[in-house]
Amino acid sequence: MLLLKQNHAKIGQSLAGELADVESRFTQELASDLDCVNALINHIERYRGKMLRPMLVLVSGMASSPTARGLTDPHRVVATVAEMVHMATLVHDDVLDDAHVRRRSTTINYLRGNEAAVMLGDYLISHAYHLCSSLDQTRCCRTLADATNTVCEGELLQLDNRANLDLDEDTYFQIIGLKTASFCGTCCKLGAMINNAPAQTVNALYAYGEKLGLAYQIVDDILDITGTEDTVGKTLGRDLDKGKLTLPLIHTLATTNAQTRQTLLDLLNPTNNTDPPPDRADRVRDIILNADALDYANARAQQLIQQAQQTLLSLEDSPSRTLLQDMANAVLSRKF
Amino acid sequence: MLLLKQNHAKIGQSLAGELADVESRFTQELASDLDCVNALINHIERYRGKMLRPMLVLVSGMASSPTARGLTDPHRVVATVAEMVHMATLVHDDVLDDAHVRRRSTTINYLRGNEAAVMLGDYLISHAYHLCSSLDQTRCCRTLADATNTVCEGELLQLDNRANLDLDEDTYFQIIGLKTASFCGTCCKLGAMINNAPAQTVNALYAYGEKLGLAYQIVDDILDITGTEDTVGKTLGRDLDKGKLTLPLIHTLATTNAQTRQTLLDLLNPTNNTDPPPDRADRVRDIILNADALDYANARAQQLIQQAQQTLLSLEDSPSRTLLQDMANAVLSRKF
Repeated sequence: MLLLKQNHAKIGQSLAGELADVESRFTQELASDLDCVNALINHIERYRGKMLRPMLVLVSGMASSPTARGLTDPHRVVATVAEMVHMATLVHDDVLDDAHVRRRSTTINYLRGNEAAVMLGDYLISHAYHLCSSLDQTRCCRTLADATNTVCEGELLQLDNRANLDLDEDTYFQIIGLKTASFCGTCCKLGAMINNAPAQTVNALYAYGEKLGLAYQIVDDILDITGTEDTVGKTLGRDLDKGKLTLPLIHTLATTNAQTRQTLLDLLNPTNNTDPPPDRADRVRDIILNADALDYANARAQQLIQQAQQTLLSLEDSPSRTLLQDMANAVLSRKF
Repeated sequence: MLLLKQNHAKIGQSLAGELADVESRFTQELASDLDCVNALINHIERYRGKMLRPMLVLVSGMASSPTARGLTDPHRVVATVAEMVHMATLVHDDVLDDAHVRRRSTTINYLRGNEAAVMLGDYLISHAYHLCSSLDQTRCCRTLADATNTVCEGELLQLDNRANLDLDEDTYFQIIGLKTASFCGTCCKLGAMINNAPAQTVNALYAYGEKLGLAYQIVDDILDITGTEDTVGKTLGRDLDKGKLTLPLIHTLATTNAQTRQTLLDLLNPTNNTDPPPDRADRVRDIILNADALDYANARAQQLIQQAQQTLLSLEDSPSRTLLQDMANAVLSRKF
């Protein structure tokens, strides 16, 4: 799970138990009568990461009902669904990114081909909706599917802007808003919706999750530059190879001098990349580091985290609200 | 739509109107605020085919309530959902099959890359669930997701048996049962479920759809051999290139003499295929044609269609039951 600095004692222990429950539901729901399917599922269990999205569902559930009976079964169901959807996007993202390593494990597409990865992602999505529709009402399914519609739009907009060296910051924020932030917001929203929390609480938690999601994505961009393959656990420099523009790069292109900009454009120009220099990623990285673009990206992420924390103040004070505040800090300080 | 031999006069007209309604709901639901998404959606509208699955939902809806008010809005919703799910599987299948042509149009993966095809398929699946969850109850969502779970298992089992020259007929039927027949059965089942039809009717219609789906897939295998690219509208011989064993091929391998079998195995052996002879597909086709394997496959399809029609006899006689009988005949006689 996401590494928290503070010790949340009782609530932290209870959350750890709930996340273990999510893991076991996840495994149970995906089990198949077919050995070949189970082999793939066993493999992706290794991708299990920070479990940010189930945490957002569960802690939002706690924070939106601080004095009540706590979490209910639908919270656990939706938390598991959120992890399945996220896992599906990882598996399909790896096909899109042609990635070979994910969280220090070989990717399914590299190991078993794009075809198996496409179908495994579909299997995960299908099971997510199947599990979600075990709930009494369709409103969770509807909200979930609304969120996945948006995620797909974000992915398609990002693909459409591949190798678009003129990508501006607004479009960048539109892409990560659709692709990442909306789903984080929805996880928080669902946690509160299940409690029938008042609209103000639901909206505040959605806004919290959305801001946190934007910051999460910017930190991803930063780690692609500052991290090592060993700590981040995925192939670095793929963003570059796949023509995906990150915030530090966009900022550098927009603010650097004409000469450096031209050097960057030459390095990034896809028509020059039929045989890219082996040190291309290093050279781009050096230019970004010299342009202080990481400070800029860090400041943007920090600002978003402050905004996320600000929106929580409309909620009643409680240990779970403090936990949400600290989760936002952890998104900012994460090293992987 | 599926070409019917008989003139179904009034009911046929009404069905054509309902299918036009499905088309318009389909387009409306998929519209996006993003131009790049709409461009992809416009392209796949050209894939629109026989609309078998929406027809199964609608006519099963009519046949399971012959004397009642006819079709309701949930029937139209579920028929549209069925077409979206089917379209999603086509788009992802083309990635799996590396196909360049689909229904005489260039495929999305060939035109815009595998990445766009993967995401477009996800967008379609997501919108299918989103639309389905607009209904009051979760039971349609649950039944739909159960069916898509099964479709994915079938696709994964098929992938696992790629280039498995020992694939037996039982496993072949297991694959097409999971991949194709279960979804056709579910379309019929949903049509009846929405009417709150008695269990006997729901089960009979599921069995009808399942048998019809098996026959449909066998006819696909036959058309891959006897059809021309112009009539079938997709790249022929891809099944062979992708190591997908079809019923005529499985039957030929199981029944031909040792010498011919060895010739076939040499032609099919993937390790020999690094540089396959340009006439490989033609040579395999000739061997299959000489082995009378098409007669065998045709007989199996015919038998399944008879069984499908048999199950309908438990339903009250009505023009829509006759239409279902004729749809089964049309699956058998289709040329594309």
